Amino acid sequence: MPAFTTMRRVEFRDTDAAGIVHFSRFFTWMEEAEHEALRSVGMSVMPGQDTPAELQVGWPRINASCEYQKPLRFEDEVQISVLAVRIGGKSVVYEFIFTLDSQVIATGSMTAVCCRLVDGQIRSDSIPADLRECLLKLTEAGS
Amino acid sequence: MPAFTTMRRVEFRDTDAAGIVHFSRFFTWMEEAEHEALRSVGMSVMPGQDTPAELQVGWPRINASCEYQKPLRFEDEVQISVLAVRIGGKSVVYEFIFTLDSQVIATGSMTAVCCRLVDGQIRSDSIPADLRECLLKLTEAGS
Amino acid sequence: MPAFTTMRRVEFRDTDAAGIVHFSRFFTWMEEAEHEALRSVGMSVMPGQDTPAELQVGWPRINASCEYQKPLRFEDEVQISVLAVRIGGKSVVYEFIFTLDSQVIATGSMTAVCCRLVDGQIRSDSIPADLRECLLKLTEAGS
Amino acid sequence: MPAFTTMRRVEFRDTDAAGIVHFSRFFTWMEEAEHEALRSVGMSVMPGQDTPAELQVGWPRINASCEYQKPLRFEDEVQISVLAVRIGGKSVVYEFIFTLDSQVIATGSMTAVCCRLVDGQIRSDSIPADLRECLLKLTEAGS
Repeated sequence: MPAFTTMRRVEFRDTDAAGIVHFSRFFTWMEEAEHEALRSVGMSVMPGQDTPAELQVGWPRINASCEYQKPLRFEDEVQISVLAVRIGGKSVVYEFIFTLDSQVIATGSMTAVCCRLVDGQIRSDSIPADLRECLLKLTEAGS
Repeated sequence: MPAFTTMRRVEFRDTDAAGIVHFSRFFTWMEEAEHEALRSVGMSVMPGQDTPAELQVGWPRINASCEYQKPLRFEDEVQISVLAVRIGGKSVVYEFIFTLDSQVIATGSMTAVCCRLVDGQIRSDSIPADLRECLLKLTEAGS
Repeated sequence: MPAFTTMRRVEFRDTDAAGIVHFSRFFTWMEEAEHEALRSVGMSVMPGQDTPAELQVGWPRINASCEYQKPLRFEDEVQISVLAVRIGGKSVVYEFIFTLDSQVIATGSMTAVCCRLVDGQIRSDSIPADLRECLLKLTEAGS
Repeated sequence: MPAFTTMRRVEFRDTDAAGIVHFSRFFTWMEEAEHEALRSVGMSVMPGQDTPAELQVGWPRINASCEYQKPLRFEDEVQISVLAVRIGGKSVVYEFIFTLDSQVIATGSMTAVCCRLVDGQIRSDSIPADLRECLLKLTEAGS
């Protein structure tokens, strides 16, 4: 069971001259769903100025992939589910399932790494305990 | 006569389900052409760390518009011309003409305002003399 | 009073290296709001195969413009209002107001022309009576 | 050795609020590079009306992935190399390498399937001999 689901309607700009949603659009949907899932458990990928230094981390991706099964068309309403399938010391792997009327359209995966800005350099770092607890709510066990 | 011209090939992602270039794409092309024109006269819209403080300015837009005459299709090669039609104390107005095989496809306009970051706030400011000289090369008289 | 309002949350991909929403994004938001407004009065900009021939029309834009007042940032929730300010014989002019916490962020305008595919050519045509009635609901008087 | 290489300059719209190129942009670059590579060997992914029926095929993707190693910034000039690493009966797998000043920024992969429109349905089909010959020029042996 997915830990979090959201919906997106296919907008006209999402389509291309083949009349279907462009394959690249699934990657921005994945990110939107990831961020929405994180907000649902009390996290933002972009720390504010009030965020304690300890939690001032960002989450750049080190990989992203998508498998396409069926096309989507203008005005389709696609469901996107998000699951944190692996939470490592410094990274988290998300899986995404796109469905339309219960049919799987595409599945995706993304690995985000917990990073800090140290002396102007982006460095990977251990996921802070507070954030790990949030992320656990996006796993199968935690949801 | 335009002060600067560049070419863009229509990429598949630029099209939509109507089989033509999406109207919003012309605005990113305008910006790309503006930046390329600025580079051609020795300016960047994004100052580097070595840029003297005096020239540490940004150029947010206060308006942008486009009139569409003909559609563009996948793999068309469109010419974009850039002209600085008015250089005010703090702002510059650019005009853009999109042509395909000498036929006008669209015309656009954009006003960018010279701004500085002052105490964390974006403030409009007079265009520094050095940059004004660069911009003049993008006017009809200067080109 | 606007005839129709909708909300959009600023997604990470909507931002640029200046830390704010890219100016071109407002144009795709306008289109999304237009299409949502049209759906709310029973129209789709993309006729289906069951649509009667009489109503098989498309709505390419002949112009689009936007005035920018304030920046938007990641995760801001912007309200977009849509108003059909002029319905001509063959075209409709929409006005858009973007607000954040009741502050105007930007205002936009777009003219869409009623078109048919005749012998493989896109031709402007009179707005069918049924669609005109729908559009009237998006005017100040009709809403 | 790559079979085909092309260059892209990072445009402002390619960046996000983290100040670097958005991860999704690499997928549209892959497609642009693929199409440019295909043109270089005499193919277009979008057959024209004069294309013989036999060659009227499209190439939807069934998967796409990218591994990210280093960030790209505004105005960087990235080199993209394309290699057809496997040509099957009905599909082709491309590999992409993104480099900046000889440093690998990212590597990507994409599988495109040869498809025909049969009775309004998209069906996979054998790659026509003429196109196979073109594709072979994008392999390590053929280049």
